[in-house]
Amino acid sequence: MKALVYNGPGQMALEDRAMPVVRDAGDAVVRIVKTTICGTDLHILKGDVPSCTPGRILGHEGVGEIDSVGAGVTSFKPGDRVLISCISACGRCDYCRRNIYSHCRTGGWTLGNEIDGTQAEFVRIPHADTSLYPVPSGADEDVLVLLSDILPTGFECGVLNGKVSPGSTVAIVGAGPVGLAALLTAQLYSPARLIMIDLDDNRLAIARQFGATDTINAADAGAAERVRALCDGMGVDTAIEAVGVPSTFLFCQDVVAPGGVIANVGVHGAKVDLHLERLWSRNIAITTRLVDTVSTPMLLKSVCTHRIDPARLITHRFKLDEIVAAYDTFGHAATTRALKVIITP
Amino acid sequence: MKALVYNGPGQMALEDRAMPVVRDAGDAVVRIVKTTICGTDLHILKGDVPSCTPGRILGHEGVGEIDSVGAGVTSFKPGDRVLISCISACGRCDYCRRNIYSHCRTGGWTLGNEIDGTQAEFVRIPHADTSLYPVPSGADEDVLVLLSDILPTGFECGVLNGKVSPGSTVAIVGAGPVGLAALLTAQLYSPARLIMIDLDDNRLAIARQFGATDTINAADAGAAERVRALCDGMGVDTAIEAVGVPSTFLFCQDVVAPGGVIANVGVHGAKVDLHLERLWSRNIAITTRLVDTVSTPMLLKSVCTHRIDPARLITHRFKLDEIVAAYDTFGHAATTRALKVIITP
Repeated sequence: MKALVYNGPGQMALEDRAMPVVRDAGDAVVRIVKTTICGTDLHILKGDVPSCTPGRILGHEGVGEIDSVGAGVTSFKPGDRVLISCISACGRCDYCRRNIYSHCRTGGWTLGNEIDGTQAEFVRIPHADTSLYPVPSGADEDVLVLLSDILPTGFECGVLNGKVSPGSTVAIVGAGPVGLAALLTAQLYSPARLIMIDLDDNRLAIARQFGATDTINAADAGAAERVRALCDGMGVDTAIEAVGVPSTFLFCQDVVAPGGVIANVGVHGAKVDLHLERLWSRNIAITTRLVDTVSTPMLLKSVCTHRIDPARLITHRFKLDEIVAAYDTFGHAATTRALKVIITP
Repeated sequence: MKALVYNGPGQMALEDRAMPVVRDAGDAVVRIVKTTICGTDLHILKGDVPSCTPGRILGHEGVGEIDSVGAGVTSFKPGDRVLISCISACGRCDYCRRNIYSHCRTGGWTLGNEIDGTQAEFVRIPHADTSLYPVPSGADEDVLVLLSDILPTGFECGVLNGKVSPGSTVAIVGAGPVGLAALLTAQLYSPARLIMIDLDDNRLAIARQFGATDTINAADAGAAERVRALCDGMGVDTAIEAVGVPSTFLFCQDVVAPGGVIANVGVHGAKVDLHLERLWSRNIAITTRLVDTVSTPMLLKSVCTHRIDPARLITHRFKLDEIVAAYDTFGHAATTRALKVIITP
């Protein structure tokens, strides 16, 4: 089969690889119908993710059709259409029972990282019963791919951890795909203000189309002060960090109100300064989270009933044969204006 | 009247000052029966608290007797014995109505900071109805002084924010008075392990008497690893930072388990490193809080019914005339072994 293989920092290729097979009783082999590329894949290509070793098939998002299942799989049978979660969860360990699937003792984010992933014609999914979801009939499978990772990430790490609630004020720092996913799903809770902050005016224009009540270019003088001014001068109840660099995390510290939350979504490669000399007395919380995908069933219903419309995040489509060009398009988003690219084998 | 006055960094004196009087309808003037010295008073004396200006009477803890009240005070009358909260709360503003009394728009921690405090024969208490508590008959007033600040601080900022719960594992970094207050009040929630960490073996011995299940000297090689080893190798559910320096906050980052909380109690004078490059995916929360004293009524009941016994925190007693000596004793705790000193006018 064809598969996109990571061959060490800066190197990848579309290669011929052996078909995956069922190895454990809980496994399913899934034929990929749709997949996509994530910002995390770009991190891997930069060499930032040491757990992902050369030779690995990349990809942790996708929709597919069950090809075969192990003897222990009871929820799916060949021919079923399934949404693949980026998180594999055994459903049995202490972390899974606390709904922290991301820290499953025999799973977590392994797909396209520690085991071969979804940017291929077929993929082996361990713990299939608790890591796949049935695709509702009539659903748009291009859109469902966004439910593998980006939508639950924006929602769980940003909106839920950030305690977004009716009447509250929210700043989302970073209007990339995950920031926009947080923006879309935040609206499920009807906050009073959704302020989007980015350096790219094009992305801020998109954010306004996606429901931002206010947009502020982070490069403007007094950007943090302008955010606070929009919220009685006190700052926001929720600051969502959706970039993953020290300057955006600092911006969140500058705009959060007493009693507020900084919900970190970004993948950080370096330590940051935490200004506890100012914040120790401010009654704030800072949260971090690798998505657990516990919200996937709810998000599926919300997408299928049009409470949220993530289709707008899809800007480009490619065939699997063109995936190297798709990486190029996705990796140069500032010029290509790519948000999410859909790849079809 | 006699009062302990802050005269700029490193300078204080017991001086003669005019009696306070009722200025606003919500005020009470209280005759001090007992007061104490807090670590925060030492911070002020170092010049670390710019909101406290020279000429200020220090102190934000105490038990007293109502001397006079303003026309708007309905809950107290002259002669009533009262516990003074370190936080003045109007009970009416948006923050008070969210129970974040520490950020009351016309109150918060003002006593012995922005207005004259309790280390005197008399003190003016604004917002008396919502900043004083009736002393139950028969209560030990020496012990109640510990309810003005230290006990609710350890409880609210450490135990409540840290989500200490039955069966959970807790590390408290810093076995000073506030760390020990967290240790005492954490036992209200019956955690499985209460691990106390400090550099002072004497304080660790006290912590064991106070209910610590394990003690570890932070200077020992592999101290953080030893904490994790006590908790299945994963780390603690709750790490309470009760010192306020970068190294202890770092220690908390080293021992918190995925899904856990770092509850900051310490007063920090400098920024700290936050290792988001490790923690972004660990599903943790970091909380900060200036005590709100929302738990004071519950703690009063718990002390009066002997569910917790903070009397052991009192190591020294002085008269108000001897308060400069009391500061000396409290400020050299490593040699005097002082925890809390009770001062009686």
